[in-house]
Amino acid sequence: MDKCTIVLLGATGDLAKRKLIPALYTLVANGKLKDFLFVGAAFEDVTVDEMLDQSLPFIEKGKIKSWELLKKRTVYQQLDFSYEEGFEYLTKLIEKLEKQYNLTGNRLVYCATSSDFFCLITKHLVKAGIIQKKKQEEKSWNRIIYEKPFGYDVASAHKINKCIAQLLYEHQIFRIDHYLTKELVSNIALVRFTNCVFEPLWNNRFIDNVQIILSEKICVEGRGIYYDKYGAILDVMQNHMLELLALIAMEMPKRLTGEFIRQERAKVLKDVNAVDLCMGQYEGYRESQGVDPESNTETFAMAYLRINNPRWSGVPFYLKTGKCLDKKETVIYMKFKKVECLLTKGCPQESNYLTIQIAPDAGFSLSLNVKKPGRLYEVVPVDMEFYHSCLWEEKSAEAYEVLFEEVIHGEQSVSVRFDEIEYAWKVIDELKKIDVPVYPYEPGSIGPFECDIFAKKHGMRWLS
Amino acid sequence: MDKCTIVLLGATGDLAKRKLIPALYTLVANGKLKDFLFVGAAFEDVTVDEMLDQSLPFIEKGKIKSWELLKKRTVYQQLDFSYEEGFEYLTKLIEKLEKQYNLTGNRLVYCATSSDFFCLITKHLVKAGIIQKKKQEEKSWNRIIYEKPFGYDVASAHKINKCIAQLLYEHQIFRIDHYLTKELVSNIALVRFTNCVFEPLWNNRFIDNVQIILSEKICVEGRGIYYDKYGAILDVMQNHMLELLALIAMEMPKRLTGEFIRQERAKVLKDVNAVDLCMGQYEGYRESQGVDPESNTETFAMAYLRINNPRWSGVPFYLKTGKCLDKKETVIYMKFKKVECLLTKGCPQESNYLTIQIAPDAGFSLSLNVKKPGRLYEVVPVDMEFYHSCLWEEKSAEAYEVLFEEVIHGEQSVSVRFDEIEYAWKVIDELKKIDVPVYPYEPGSIGPFECDIFAKKHGMRWLS
Repeated sequence: MDKCTIVLLGATGDLAKRKLIPALYTLVANGKLKDFLFVGAAFEDVTVDEMLDQSLPFIEKGKIKSWELLKKRTVYQQLDFSYEEGFEYLTKLIEKLEKQYNLTGNRLVYCATSSDFFCLITKHLVKAGIIQKKKQEEKSWNRIIYEKPFGYDVASAHKINKCIAQLLYEHQIFRIDHYLTKELVSNIALVRFTNCVFEPLWNNRFIDNVQIILSEKICVEGRGIYYDKYGAILDVMQNHMLELLALIAMEMPKRLTGEFIRQERAKVLKDVNAVDLCMGQYEGYRESQGVDPESNTETFAMAYLRINNPRWSGVPFYLKTGKCLDKKETVIYMKFKKVECLLTKGCPQESNYLTIQIAPDAGFSLSLNVKKPGRLYEVVPVDMEFYHSCLWEEKSAEAYEVLFEEVIHGEQSVSVRFDEIEYAWKVIDELKKIDVPVYPYEPGSIGPFECDIFAKKHGMRWLS
Repeated sequence: MDKCTIVLLGATGDLAKRKLIPALYTLVANGKLKDFLFVGAAFEDVTVDEMLDQSLPFIEKGKIKSWELLKKRTVYQQLDFSYEEGFEYLTKLIEKLEKQYNLTGNRLVYCATSSDFFCLITKHLVKAGIIQKKKQEEKSWNRIIYEKPFGYDVASAHKINKCIAQLLYEHQIFRIDHYLTKELVSNIALVRFTNCVFEPLWNNRFIDNVQIILSEKICVEGRGIYYDKYGAILDVMQNHMLELLALIAMEMPKRLTGEFIRQERAKVLKDVNAVDLCMGQYEGYRESQGVDPESNTETFAMAYLRINNPRWSGVPFYLKTGKCLDKKETVIYMKFKKVECLLTKGCPQESNYLTIQIAPDAGFSLSLNVKKPGRLYEVVPVDMEFYHSCLWEEKSAEAYEVLFEEVIHGEQSVSVRFDEIEYAWKVIDELKKIDVPVYPYEPGSIGPFECDIFAKKHGMRWLS
């Protein structure tokens, strides 16, 4: 990987602690990140040690030995994002250390902050010269990562886009969705387009419906203040789940990289419409720390979307997500149309679908109708399966590790393009306009009873 | 199952000993065959005990306890198939015992003899009244099974067909191929036609080629006299392998039973043409017991066939079989067309095929291109698998057990129809007209080197 300076804004936050610093640590530990400077910055007054050590519980035991390597190249700077002066001081610090470490001016700023600050922070960064508007041909690169959620509706996302587009080139901007770097997610397009078995069936002639499920067992826990402002739809549907939908539904890109994929994802998201919605809030949510005691924020949502293009016209896309549910699972089902089993004594309802399992296990399986052994033609469903863990013992890299790597390599497919993100927000705005109540549900359940009815009303059955 | 009398002609032969009597025994042991009479007949002068006991080594240990049950209802009759008189005596014996056991005249005669005798035996059976020409509506049924091979070319098969058609109705006649009762074989049509995933791809737009492989590790062993007369092509290609081809290639039948399947199998076999052939004989074959020391009989054959119909036009069907090879395996590969991997850095040659594994393990698998974990888009092949043994612990019934059951139930899909068998012979006659040498090969190898060249010449690669 290129020599570079990584500036993390929001370095004392939850994401930095749990994911970003551990990811950097791993990249250092496995020798991928060698020549670097890591600058943490946030509002809090902490030491380098305090900032780094908060991540220790999230690092695999027995791998702590590279901790010192990281620490040696790390500084922390207290910073109030609202004031220009701090950024100027930061520039001087960075320039001094880059000289000292013989770095070449490649810089990556990670905004792990609320999107309310994105415009202002970018202005300050550019003005202070930490990030400069640079053409792709230039020797060194300056890039900026904006953590999700990017705004809270089309209007706010558009406003941020407009602001940052005046300051930087699109190729410097990474509106990231770490889901796009999950092993199985980056596999979806490849499996679709390099196997003759799937692509011919991947359309409204053969697909009955598509189900995208992101279930969490954990409840809101320490994230009350953040979560209550956003809710399930903005927290995961707007980004992760719509990106999964885009990868499943997009047309074939010219190549499986960068701009080619973003182009197709944006194109398909433009054609998505919200049809119906069901929402829930788990009992006890309002008593959580940081949550408004009269909060009406949804912690569960079921959405029915359609894609108005020739390939998908008539195929429902169902999305389901929630916190405090009975299981943790991220999975996509492509349900094939049921064959009229005139040939036999009838076929089971629930067979004939492709499962793309993203978490907890990564793998693919195909549920097929086969003959039950014996003389009668009794049809039973069985699964043909493949799990990553069966073939590749080594754990796949964590999403944020891959993310840093890809951004440092300048691979834009992990980033959501300016128009793509606005199309996704358009879907969400449409969805949120659907005026439905938020039903209560029991923690540890499958969600509100009323959303079960909702599914039945639309004649669909969730495959899990 | 119906009460019935089972007459086995050729009761002291190899097939009776190894397969048929053990199958009857199992049907008695598991309570399926309750009210019956079993009459063994052959040229040899043996006792009931001698006839039955020859099968003891082929019966699972620990299951011998029902042996006495079978023995109690078994008689043996010495019989010269050439003389009418013996059959008359046999009739009297059967009638007497049927009365004694209160049987109702349902009769099944199994001709486990050379097809040279089929016509004559049938004449004698009908004349003596053991088997009578009976309409389907009649109260009791009389059925006859002809073991393969049914003739040795179109002309001889046609002659037998003509002879027996004058004596019996087609619904009484079972030209059997025990492969048709193997669990996975009867599954092929069901999997094809009850899954939306396969049928749309099952044609010349998506299939590159079809490979049907029946490899045996055992050499000719005790079957020299029989085998040397027939060879690999007549022994397994004409029947088992062409029936597999018919099931793979046939159009959708109206139902997955009896006449509907036979109709479609016959239709597709009619359109099969032989394109090319390669043959081999393993070294040492000529020294085997019963084999002509100057024999030119093939113990290995590779055939290239085509099907002249809209579905399969342009798709090569490759058949490969042999004795004394490196492994025992019966498998079918549906090789999908290669996707032009412009999207990535290229795709592996050998991915993207469906495997229908018939023996030794029963199962399906689909070889797919997926992304190798990591940041580069490296494509690797993996298998999605399903094996019967994973889901159903109990061993599937042996083919001949199912065969008896199906015939007693009058299920005609296990029988090859008069025209179907002649179409199969037509393919074989065409194939045998191709004038090619018989190449030697080493026992335990993959076959003659020259047949490897043959495959390359046709631009194909065997998937195993």
